[in-house]
Amino acid sequence: MEQIPYKIYLNENEMPTAWYNVRADMKKKPAPLLNPGTGKPMTAEELGHVFCDELVRQELNDTDAYIPIPDEIRAFYKMYRPSPLVRAYCLEEKLQSPAKIYYKFEGNNTSGSHKLNSAIAQAYYAKKQGLRGVTTETGAGQWGTALSMACSYFDLDCLVYMVKVSYEQKPFRREVMRTYGAQVTPSPSNTTAIGRKILEEFPGTGGSLGCAISEAVEAATTREGYRYVLGSVLNQVLLHQSVIGLETKAALDKYGIKPDIIIGCAGGGSNLGGLISPFMGEVLRGEKNYRFIAVEPASCPSLTRGKYAYDFCDTGKVCPLAKMYTLGSGFIPAPNHAGGLRYHGMSSILSELYDQGLLEARSVVQTDVFRAAEAFARVEGILPAPESAHAIKVAIDEAQKCKETGEEKTIVFGLTGTGYFDMVAYEKFHNGEMGDYIPSDEELQKGFDKLPKLN
Amino acid sequence: MEQIPYKIYLNENEMPTAWYNVRADMKKKPAPLLNPGTGKPMTAEELGHVFCDELVRQELNDTDAYIPIPDEIRAFYKMYRPSPLVRAYCLEEKLQSPAKIYYKFEGNNTSGSHKLNSAIAQAYYAKKQGLRGVTTETGAGQWGTALSMACSYFDLDCLVYMVKVSYEQKPFRREVMRTYGAQVTPSPSNTTAIGRKILEEFPGTGGSLGCAISEAVEAATTREGYRYVLGSVLNQVLLHQSVIGLETKAALDKYGIKPDIIIGCAGGGSNLGGLISPFMGEVLRGEKNYRFIAVEPASCPSLTRGKYAYDFCDTGKVCPLAKMYTLGSGFIPAPNHAGGLRYHGMSSILSELYDQGLLEARSVVQTDVFRAAEAFARVEGILPAPESAHAIKVAIDEAQKCKETGEEKTIVFGLTGTGYFDMVAYEKFHNGEMGDYIPSDEELQKGFDKLPKLN
Repeated sequence: MEQIPYKIYLNENEMPTAWYNVRADMKKKPAPLLNPGTGKPMTAEELGHVFCDELVRQELNDTDAYIPIPDEIRAFYKMYRPSPLVRAYCLEEKLQSPAKIYYKFEGNNTSGSHKLNSAIAQAYYAKKQGLRGVTTETGAGQWGTALSMACSYFDLDCLVYMVKVSYEQKPFRREVMRTYGAQVTPSPSNTTAIGRKILEEFPGTGGSLGCAISEAVEAATTREGYRYVLGSVLNQVLLHQSVIGLETKAALDKYGIKPDIIIGCAGGGSNLGGLISPFMGEVLRGEKNYRFIAVEPASCPSLTRGKYAYDFCDTGKVCPLAKMYTLGSGFIPAPNHAGGLRYHGMSSILSELYDQGLLEARSVVQTDVFRAAEAFARVEGILPAPESAHAIKVAIDEAQKCKETGEEKTIVFGLTGTGYFDMVAYEKFHNGEMGDYIPSDEELQKGFDKLPKLN
Repeated sequence: MEQIPYKIYLNENEMPTAWYNVRADMKKKPAPLLNPGTGKPMTAEELGHVFCDELVRQELNDTDAYIPIPDEIRAFYKMYRPSPLVRAYCLEEKLQSPAKIYYKFEGNNTSGSHKLNSAIAQAYYAKKQGLRGVTTETGAGQWGTALSMACSYFDLDCLVYMVKVSYEQKPFRREVMRTYGAQVTPSPSNTTAIGRKILEEFPGTGGSLGCAISEAVEAATTREGYRYVLGSVLNQVLLHQSVIGLETKAALDKYGIKPDIIIGCAGGGSNLGGLISPFMGEVLRGEKNYRFIAVEPASCPSLTRGKYAYDFCDTGKVCPLAKMYTLGSGFIPAPNHAGGLRYHGMSSILSELYDQGLLEARSVVQTDVFRAAEAFARVEGILPAPESAHAIKVAIDEAQKCKETGEEKTIVFGLTGTGYFDMVAYEKFHNGEMGDYIPSDEELQKGFDKLPKLN
């Protein structure tokens, strides 16, 4: 057989022409979004006040397995895709493991992560609907950056509410967004009613993701020609992110490689869901078998220690209710540098698959994650984002097990992004100033106690 | 003909197996390095005190056109190479120019620039010689980062003297180097005699590249098993960087494309020299014709306004004399955010080619450069390093000329790296706080007055 190259690049004409919608192959579908007021499933009309029409259709579509990717989006994808599937020869040698390790690297674009895959789709549909712009929130900044790039491409206004403490601590992220023409506002701000209310109550607050979401939704629904967009959790986002898994599968198939284990970090689920979807489809259709592992921070363990229940997607409780593994929308995760994984809930699709026993989950502490990140960087060259390094940690663990048993397993993991804007966290790690935090059962119970009564 | 893809990726087996040494095809060779004490050409033995033996051989070799790339270096190259040659379809459309624009993108590796191409070669030869480690200086930090990665791969000590003001202002660059295990020391430091002397004279100094070079050379020559390495200017560096040009040429040849103009930014010359070498070889052998344009900052115009003369490579005057276009080793460039282009001299190879009229040069002011950088980022997605953006500026200028004349020229430029660690400069630009500086003739004369008497 042809020797496997270090990096498998598909040709541009081998890129997917349609996204894969895993819900179509699920016998038991993910539970629908509910209107918190009525307790009834959200209608397309209700969702249309907040989201673009075409995205609402995608959100509610659980029957079509393939949804064509518009040419305009494919043209943009070609600027940074197909992304490489890398054979981690150097890591394998370092570990002296018989395991064969591959990673799908999504960090080779300026936004630094996979978030761009959905940002460009959401911006496209907003443009097509004739909107003036979109609003969103951002914490760590990867999503905001991706959306800024996408809006710049389609000449759309982009209003980003950035958690104030991040706005101040991550000025470089902010400047990248400004380079792409986004208007970045520290949240809470006095540009919205909810922001003014919060500022009045807590004048010195550094803000939170929940508050930023509320401001972004208010900004979208009170301005003519704007809609709100979100970078994870939603079905539509996982749909767009399926491009990751489709490319991964095409690259593996090209070389006749069948993975045994597929691993991804999981915050809201955008990357993991996208990576595993096409493989999960094969399992759901009874064609093949794989192990899937979701990796989450021990400080925010929604799958491993959460409840499967209807909950608010945001702390401000302005969004619909979603059925998901959750720590409660009031749960405030301890400071963990993997900002992209500090979310109290998990995508409804992944939650349902986990509940059906088709997906495993594991939680890891952050010092272990940074140790894995550094070891990986030194042999594979790439400086991983802390989020991505969660997957690296478990991939290394699994490869070590292979070393013990002598099994030649094939491990594939998602390397979602780069860590250039996370050097403060690396510095703390180098200086021995990084701690680990695992919430107590009592602490988690407080979050569960505040779940909506509906359940 | 087959449609040209957005990104031309060579297969790994199409990567070059040998570097191209343009000096072999030059009838009039670049002038040799001179011993400042004797005024005679530096011997291999003299150079061997400072540099690795094999690198000294490469430095002095102006007869062999091809020097094989060792397998170990090729294996490392495969982790991030071949780098894409991108067809700038989106930029072309934005400019509405009939020009066809391509760029060779060298930023898709963690060091963020092309510097890694030579760093890994220099680290390899140091390891092969049985050395314990290497020393170097870094200003903006791209070279230090690249060398850290290379040393980590070969398990070599890496001592980086980082200009103190950069060390303090660019803590993230420092942390990337520490991630790869480098020991980063702010310069001037009390770890060397020259550093202590400078600190005594100027206790509050923020340091300079010249001082950092002096410390790095002292550290290399006073420790058992260490040598000094440099990221630009030297012949050996241009040799290693020829991998950029060889891949570019292979990718163009694959699609039958003949460039009309090849453009690169020029500080010490590592990128430009590497990019143009194989094409210049064709010109030197009388096979083809191309226009080559070196782009430098107006604040540090060594080619456009410098003198072709023997000069010191460093302000500390500890290095040999090189014949080059220079502003004088005492010339202190005004603050320009393209740190990698703030060098008083220019590679001897490029200087000689320029003197022979084979290479054009153009200087540009930095606000124009950032305007071009931002326009490029918005349509092509990639956030360019300020250094690289010098080439973008002139590529856009040339494409605009094509628009006026209607000529369908093919323009190729080098996009050397990404700007993730340069957001302070972007911020100044966004805030309208960035100025331009063009030195007066009187100022330049002061630098020329201090050139070594030898000339």
